[in-house]
Amino acid sequence: MYDRLKGFKDFYPDEMAARREVIDTLEGVARRYGFREIATPAMEDVGMYVDKSGEGIVEELYTFTDKGGRDVSLAPELTPTVARMVVAKGQELSKPIKWFSTRPFWRYEQVQQGRFREFYQTNVDIFGSAEPEADAEILAFAADSLADLGLPPEEFEFRVSHRDILGELLRSFEPKVDVQDAIRAVDKSEKVDRAEYLALLTDAGLTIEDAETFDDLLAAGNEDLDALLEATDREDLTAAVKNLQAVLSAAEDFGVREHCEISLRTARGLDYYTGVVFECFDTKGRVSRAIFGGGRYDDLIESFGGQPTPAVGVAPGVMNSTLPLLLEEAGVLPEEAVSTDYYVLSVGDTRDVASRIARELRASGNIVETDVAGRSFGSQMGYADSINAETVVIVGEQDLANDEVTVKEMAGGEQTTAPVEEFPGDREQPGYEDFA
Amino acid sequence: MYDRLKGFKDFYPDEMAARREVIDTLEGVARRYGFREIATPAMEDVGMYVDKSGEGIVEELYTFTDKGGRDVSLAPELTPTVARMVVAKGQELSKPIKWFSTRPFWRYEQVQQGRFREFYQTNVDIFGSAEPEADAEILAFAADSLADLGLPPEEFEFRVSHRDILGELLRSFEPKVDVQDAIRAVDKSEKVDRAEYLALLTDAGLTIEDAETFDDLLAAGNEDLDALLEATDREDLTAAVKNLQAVLSAAEDFGVREHCEISLRTARGLDYYTGVVFECFDTKGRVSRAIFGGGRYDDLIESFGGQPTPAVGVAPGVMNSTLPLLLEEAGVLPEEAVSTDYYVLSVGDTRDVASRIARELRASGNIVETDVAGRSFGSQMGYADSINAETVVIVGEQDLANDEVTVKEMAGGEQTTAPVEEFPGDREQPGYEDFA
Repeated sequence: MYDRLKGFKDFYPDEMAARREVIDTLEGVARRYGFREIATPAMEDVGMYVDKSGEGIVEELYTFTDKGGRDVSLAPELTPTVARMVVAKGQELSKPIKWFSTRPFWRYEQVQQGRFREFYQTNVDIFGSAEPEADAEILAFAADSLADLGLPPEEFEFRVSHRDILGELLRSFEPKVDVQDAIRAVDKSEKVDRAEYLALLTDAGLTIEDAETFDDLLAAGNEDLDALLEATDREDLTAAVKNLQAVLSAAEDFGVREHCEISLRTARGLDYYTGVVFECFDTKGRVSRAIFGGGRYDDLIESFGGQPTPAVGVAPGVMNSTLPLLLEEAGVLPEEAVSTDYYVLSVGDTRDVASRIARELRASGNIVETDVAGRSFGSQMGYADSINAETVVIVGEQDLANDEVTVKEMAGGEQTTAPVEEFPGDREQPGYEDFA
Repeated sequence: MYDRLKGFKDFYPDEMAARREVIDTLEGVARRYGFREIATPAMEDVGMYVDKSGEGIVEELYTFTDKGGRDVSLAPELTPTVARMVVAKGQELSKPIKWFSTRPFWRYEQVQQGRFREFYQTNVDIFGSAEPEADAEILAFAADSLADLGLPPEEFEFRVSHRDILGELLRSFEPKVDVQDAIRAVDKSEKVDRAEYLALLTDAGLTIEDAETFDDLLAAGNEDLDALLEATDREDLTAAVKNLQAVLSAAEDFGVREHCEISLRTARGLDYYTGVVFECFDTKGRVSRAIFGGGRYDDLIESFGGQPTPAVGVAPGVMNSTLPLLLEEAGVLPEEAVSTDYYVLSVGDTRDVASRIARELRASGNIVETDVAGRSFGSQMGYADSINAETVVIVGEQDLANDEVTVKEMAGGEQTTAPVEEFPGDREQPGYEDFA
């Protein structure tokens, strides 16, 4: 007997049925917004990740040398891959480019509750627009998805921040601050205590006084962004604040402003983010971690050798992530059960008729099973029950001698006979009522 | 600039749109037959593959040692993984178990036309039935899928063979024959010349005379299976012949017999097959390789430490395989183009109205894009054309001053104005005709 690998998960049909509905909902919303599906390789040249994030990232990657001597890595995220694809086609693609895809990714990290080494995301990105409408459309896609999943509007919020606001504020205190390190400190601010957070900021190059003032300013900015403009007149800071305000204004027109909370201590972990970043949270606190996040990464495509191409995206985890967990806590995760429209039960020498009926019911789009295991009547009824069959059509020798089949509703137990030649006839979903 | 890895393929939206239709068609047919979706890990303990197929297989696998010291392999096929999953749940699962899934697999092999190192399959399997109806249902699923894909019925055939017929015939000549080697020789019979084929059979332990007689018998069996029964009275051979006949009889009832051709020289390459095996071919010879194949593997689950559990399945390749190639040759591959119902064009200070219209059209399920890149009128019209928008709704300042928007059909160029308050109103797909 073999075991599955640690950090990997098998999805059996019941669990998968619920997750399929989640994925179909997200992808349905993405399609309605005009995002187009793509499919991408599971692995890439490891350099693609190391060049962006440093050798340190290798510790978290599934890397190996393939039989052709290439150093490769399983993809830990989609963004570098789509950046590569945008660069590869260059000017051929008409902008804005709007893509989505659902697929697994892999990270070698500590396995813990709700964290897997193989995890699935639906990535949704816009390339080629630096306009605030692009950020707002990503937010609107995310909000519409959660609404379509059945989550009440007051139960989620997007904590919205801006990398350039953080960076310019930091530089206003100390031009030589290590912005990436300081932003990583901000990213950790909610997870560590205040002393540790301030220490991380001083490690990045701020004095302890500046670190405290900086954090106070973030709090003031959360109340009123204009407070930041009063603190310093740096042009780039003003532009960043105005950009965040413009995104929130577009979010208003796009119907998603009510879900947005200015939250400057939200920073996101990845280095490549540039402008607006956001994380989705459960307002009821049932799930304490971020549900998913996203943001703007305007420099990545150019750093991959492409034309300057602004970009913004979001990547809700599906399958084994915090999103299904939240849906479950909120009581809106689709029921974990398979469904079946008809089981066509065949006993005795009736296979030809049972098969004909099954085929005709399938042709109308029904989910139909029939006996493929030579089972007894009782065993077939038990199986029909196990797959939650709504209606069982019993094709027995005796009934057939009278040119009849029996139609039985499984929920209430009502049953009646129907003329075999008229079943299903031109009915798409024949049931007890049609013949009683 | 980074390159994708050799043998891997990026799917951009146009290509993906066609492949999505292929996958949706196959999965739709599988669902109507009551197959249930599962999802499975990308990688497994390498031992799972080596124990079944010998160390030799490692050459074809993407194997590596992970950071925890585990020897792992990317999955080269689904069957061992689903066998592991069936064993893991044991008696919990009600039989027959009917599963499907679509996902990529990886093999390190020579890259050539139409062969990739990353390839995608829709696997469809039945576990827990040794009955001929199970084999026939797999064939019926495959035939219905090809029909739903638009392939004319006379353009494909299933070449059906039986591993036990081959094995028992071989043993009737020479009890010590290496059946696996001989079956591999049969699998190659159509690809090598007759002398080489016969030499492979003699390598496996037959005399040259027996090899010739054996092959003559396969030819005779293709004409009439009963000819095999006249050659020898081995009980196991008789049972195997009767099993193949029973499968063809069930195939008759299931409406797929017309596509089945007895083809005893069809053997399939993998060692774990036991009973019926088959390959799908293009009857017009446009694609010379097998389109896909499948068969019965009754011993695998037990060899994985589970209860004896007969199994049968099929795995059409999707995305970058021979199936899309055949559909393309036959002129039935869905058109490679994205489609868009509406582009809502916004010029001037009209974003709020344009957004409201876009949202309402999306709520009816339409694919709707609107400006997220601050483009000019002309640039937006060009973009709407590039995404094949059917209808453009122009929301301009001047029209709005008259409380109107303009509705333009892109195909014919007809355009008219519509009262902004009535657009879309309660219309699900408003167009030129509604307002002309």
